[in-house]
Amino acid sequence: MRIGIDIMGGDFAPDNNIIGAIQAQKELGSKAQLVLIGQKEEIEKSILKNQGNINDFEIVHASEIIGMGEHPAKTFPRKPDSSIAVGFGLLKLGKIDAFAGIGNTGAMLVGSMFTVKAITGVIRPCITTVLPKEDGGVNIMLDVGTNADCKPDVLYQFGMLGSLFAKHVYNINNPKVGLLNIGEEEEKGNLLTQAAHVMMKDTKDFNFIGNVEGRDLFSDKVDVIVCDGFTGNVVLKEAEAFYTQIKRRGINDEYFNRFNYELYGGTPILGVNANVIIGHGSSSPLAVKNMLLLSYDVAKGNLSEKIKKAFA
Amino acid sequence: MRIGIDIMGGDFAPDNNIIGAIQAQKELGSKAQLVLIGQKEEIEKSILKNQGNINDFEIVHASEIIGMGEHPAKTFPRKPDSSIAVGFGLLKLGKIDAFAGIGNTGAMLVGSMFTVKAITGVIRPCITTVLPKEDGGVNIMLDVGTNADCKPDVLYQFGMLGSLFAKHVYNINNPKVGLLNIGEEEEKGNLLTQAAHVMMKDTKDFNFIGNVEGRDLFSDKVDVIVCDGFTGNVVLKEAEAFYTQIKRRGINDEYFNRFNYELYGGTPILGVNANVIIGHGSSSPLAVKNMLLLSYDVAKGNLSEKIKKAFA
Repeated sequence: MRIGIDIMGGDFAPDNNIIGAIQAQKELGSKAQLVLIGQKEEIEKSILKNQGNINDFEIVHASEIIGMGEHPAKTFPRKPDSSIAVGFGLLKLGKIDAFAGIGNTGAMLVGSMFTVKAITGVIRPCITTVLPKEDGGVNIMLDVGTNADCKPDVLYQFGMLGSLFAKHVYNINNPKVGLLNIGEEEEKGNLLTQAAHVMMKDTKDFNFIGNVEGRDLFSDKVDVIVCDGFTGNVVLKEAEAFYTQIKRRGINDEYFNRFNYELYGGTPILGVNANVIIGHGSSSPLAVKNMLLLSYDVAKGNLSEKIKKAFA
Repeated sequence: MRIGIDIMGGDFAPDNNIIGAIQAQKELGSKAQLVLIGQKEEIEKSILKNQGNINDFEIVHASEIIGMGEHPAKTFPRKPDSSIAVGFGLLKLGKIDAFAGIGNTGAMLVGSMFTVKAITGVIRPCITTVLPKEDGGVNIMLDVGTNADCKPDVLYQFGMLGSLFAKHVYNINNPKVGLLNIGEEEEKGNLLTQAAHVMMKDTKDFNFIGNVEGRDLFSDKVDVIVCDGFTGNVVLKEAEAFYTQIKRRGINDEYFNRFNYELYGGTPILGVNANVIIGHGSSSPLAVKNMLLLSYDVAKGNLSEKIKKAFA
């Protein structure tokens, strides 16, 4: 298994990426080979500085960098030797089994759509977040930002995508899929969720359990929570705001500690023809490490192939 | 000042309403007269049982009750002597300055729209919640459920309504109004928030500070947060879910304790021709007490008149 990572992306490149990679390689051992993509000299310098061993990694040189503030769609084609573009090139050729990065999110999305492309039949690829369940494990919520306006059939597909992700990466058998709504009854909601509910209610594509509400976000009654990207993004940032207050107030609690995004590291882009994983631009080394472990799980679960098959 | 309350509504009627009223009357003293609406015998029995003084209150008999599970629009006209219908009758005639209740929310909304009616010019009346700010005080969020689908001009009006509520009830001078969105930049968002932002950005009707995000929900940078009722309802219930976990885990923290809805007690229905205040069906006596104190503040601030003037 070969996992590529963009070393030049994120607010603390290259060091946070390198430290995270060193830690991940230790955990992965011979199960996976990390492929570090970026400016070779910088990468080697950072590995040495951070007490790593250059020989533990494969390094693929890329001379250019797409900056965090650069316009994704314009910059991506103009910088073919950027670490992101080189990473997608390797991914497309099958030279890596997954490509992970914490750089310019837009460029990672553009790279996904332009290079490996959306899976035929998937209307809108999307991204996820995890919400810790009160009784252990996590709820997977999608979409959380790439699709602010959704049609009912897009939400329906999120149900399929989330279910496959939960099954093949989190190893949840027959994951329970809920539609985020503002009431339990079928007829509740806005026009979007009312129509989506009708599409979902008798589906055989996933295990639909009905509407769930804001109060169920951390509940064990569901595994996958489907919503439009606007709602998902607000929910995600509200959870982050809450966690920020928990930390600020010095509360150390086993459950609330699990809201730390560093423990999860990132999200796959669901619905594209290869395994792409993105993380926060401000990722710590721990977050980068966990993004790489997630990337391994995604590649091991063969997620993009499983999705392709489901939509075939 | 005369504040009416439906004694027969809610999951624990009449006792929770009576105990809350006894406590509120003690705090309000001669500033306000509480008018208890419902089955006279039941009310008197409950006052005595709960060590209250019947002479502290005015009691208006209503023989019927609209149950929590009854269909609001169908039941309201069929039960003209229900405590809710009698309350709205008193309100319409100006015999009470505010009408509060924790009964069938739909019936309270129907009563508002059919009896006192929406203020001319207000497209969609709405309800609010408060989110405790990390540095003290609260953010007022609206709508939180009555309008699942909104047009941009409706969100614009929520900005006006929330601003007037913050000013005349919470005594916030020139309240900062933010549009809940998924990015700070003007062009971010879904079609609804993009269009609403354009309408709001140069307004003189309220102090628009731009987009706010899920991470700003508890922030001091804003006073009033505008969103559609779907998003607001999800945000509200997510906050409740967090608070449930805080309590469940035995965390006693000054800030998080302020998430207890009992401290706020309810919300006015903004945009109707009189002061109507509703609370949770499961309200404790403390919540009922605080709903009545809020009702007093709403009536004292003359909120519905101020809104009428702003929309004239």
